Amino acid sequence: MPLQLQQLLNRIQPADRSILATAQAHLDDLTKPRGSLGRLEEIALTYILSTGLLKPVLSKKKICCFAADHGVAAEGVSAFPAEVTPQMVYNMLSGGAAINVLTRHAGVDLDVVDMGVNHDFPDMPGLIKRKVRPGSSNMTIGPAMSEVETLQALLAGAELAAGAHEAGYHLLGTGEMGIANTTPATALYSVLLEVPIESITGRGTGIDDERLQHKIGVIKRAVEVNAARCTTVFGTLAALGGYEIAAITGFILGAASCRIPVVVDGFISSAGAVAALKLCPAVEDYLFFSHLSNEQGHRVVMQKLGARPILDLDLRLGEGTGAALAMQLIEGSVKIYNEMATFSAAKVSEKSAE
Amino acid sequence: MPLQLQQLLNRIQPADRSILATAQAHLDDLTKPRGSLGRLEEIALTYILSTGLLKPVLSKKKICCFAADHGVAAEGVSAFPAEVTPQMVYNMLSGGAAINVLTRHAGVDLDVVDMGVNHDFPDMPGLIKRKVRPGSSNMTIGPAMSEVETLQALLAGAELAAGAHEAGYHLLGTGEMGIANTTPATALYSVLLEVPIESITGRGTGIDDERLQHKIGVIKRAVEVNAARCTTVFGTLAALGGYEIAAITGFILGAASCRIPVVVDGFISSAGAVAALKLCPAVEDYLFFSHLSNEQGHRVVMQKLGARPILDLDLRLGEGTGAALAMQLIEGSVKIYNEMATFSAAKVSEKSAE
Repeated sequence: MPLQLQQLLNRIQPADRSILATAQAHLDDLTKPRGSLGRLEEIALTYILSTGLLKPVLSKKKICCFAADHGVAAEGVSAFPAEVTPQMVYNMLSGGAAINVLTRHAGVDLDVVDMGVNHDFPDMPGLIKRKVRPGSSNMTIGPAMSEVETLQALLAGAELAAGAHEAGYHLLGTGEMGIANTTPATALYSVLLEVPIESITGRGTGIDDERLQHKIGVIKRAVEVNAARCTTVFGTLAALGGYEIAAITGFILGAASCRIPVVVDGFISSAGAVAALKLCPAVEDYLFFSHLSNEQGHRVVMQKLGARPILDLDLRLGEGTGAALAMQLIEGSVKIYNEMATFSAAKVSEKSAE
Repeated sequence: MPLQLQQLLNRIQPADRSILATAQAHLDDLTKPRGSLGRLEEIALTYILSTGLLKPVLSKKKICCFAADHGVAAEGVSAFPAEVTPQMVYNMLSGGAAINVLTRHAGVDLDVVDMGVNHDFPDMPGLIKRKVRPGSSNMTIGPAMSEVETLQALLAGAELAAGAHEAGYHLLGTGEMGIANTTPATALYSVLLEVPIESITGRGTGIDDERLQHKIGVIKRAVEVNAARCTTVFGTLAALGGYEIAAITGFILGAASCRIPVVVDGFISSAGAVAALKLCPAVEDYLFFSHLSNEQGHRVVMQKLGARPILDLDLRLGEGTGAALAMQLIEGSVKIYNEMATFSAAKVSEKSAE
């Protein structure tokens, strides 16, 4: 493992569980039957554990949407042509994409990060340029990325998370844009979680049965061709990942090292999260899985991780759309913890002895 | 059926489905793969259908939280004493309850409506006084309410919805507070949906196994004692309901008559909705079920209705808490419809032919 990655991992500590009892006692003193706010209470506890703050603060929120192209798109695995990646980046920069609508709605700042789009963007407000290469290599022929490139993408993500921490953000979210990127995500899952490719390969942006079978074949070939490189998590990420996925992995690791919780978007972002979890299991304490994607296979992945996503809205768009919506619920959960009256202060009678 | 109720029902029309194709075409022209925003797209369509507006507006939102006491509380069916009903009303009026936190968070206005609390409230900001009687009668002995009282509560709810319409609200939500009110709600479901009482009786605010068996017995007695009164929906609502539940039924009917969509909160509010649906099936076009309650039985009820609630957060508090959270998602869905760029305007390539 590269030294810089090892140093990053060394900075990540599991959450301090000793504060849990105090936080739980406060939740139980709020004017509601114990546990009656269900997952909102769980979410508040997770937030408190991850930040280590018994008086949690949550106002500044940011989603980084990482964009990249994929050599494997040449294999015809997507319903949309590859030129849609830069077109959608422009759409995001002009405020017309779904993620723009939902981040505005949720009061979340948005950065679009070019990690490897096959297009030369001018300087534009809201665009962060971290391009490693204009598109990964076709992973059915060799590795998608070299290990040097993978480290560069990963560290760029980690640096953006650290920068957001310095800028005062309390909660971060992941998003991505990259035509064909369900293919590398699925390949990563199959190796990192040891699940059958057929059980997790889905229709992405909307391919038909025939192309779905073709996509399964493409992923199988990529995994076979790169088998010798997939002996470590980092090697697997390089061989079967993509620049935006490696950046998401780094973004999550960087956030965890700063004790900032991260909201993971959908199918692609979860692949970056799985790589981060496999590199450093303590990352689990800093993650929220925002929603159960409608992409076939996300359910399998969530079950493998023992994760229960916050929302289930049949989303399959990515960009960070599910993360933006989940951030509203997380913010509401923290407000419940911070703003509700206690039984004693509100002079409300507690539950009678049974 | 009382004449005034019949007149109210006559004003409710099914939604005009002829606008659906135009709305769907607009959704399909937005810069995302078709259908990739899943339930957000369905929610936007439901909102458009209910309002009849192809350029939907959604900014002003209000939840009415209806409060009342229940004679059946004397049977020991709740974990909390009956005096908690007025205490929690005061808590809501001073801003310390969960519903205050979540309505503030979601930008939703809140009215607390005394429909039948066993307490004489002074005039207070945010409190609407529509008390029919200070608590319903014990339904294990006779009807919970007379039909005259039931009509009064129902019409009060309808009038509040109409008033909200006149005040320019675009979306309404239900909430309730009333110690012991899972008991009448369960009794109503058992008769109106013809489901076994055991399958839908739950722990409310947190009773133990022994008291749960006792509660099932109480509900069975109430249904038996009132069997002769339960030959009509209105008669059933009177015999086995409560003032806040009848008000919720009226609120939903009133909103539907004004073509304002209503977000139904949890287990108790859904009982008001079921009565409204049984009185007038066209009401379905105006309803959002906000969340699947953790109260045992809500899943059965939602399945019986063929409804898929928006959220599943293990909430079992009521007050309107789930409705407030769902309103944020509904607002986000309408913004997606209104604010996203189209393929042509954003110069994004569409899906390739397969």
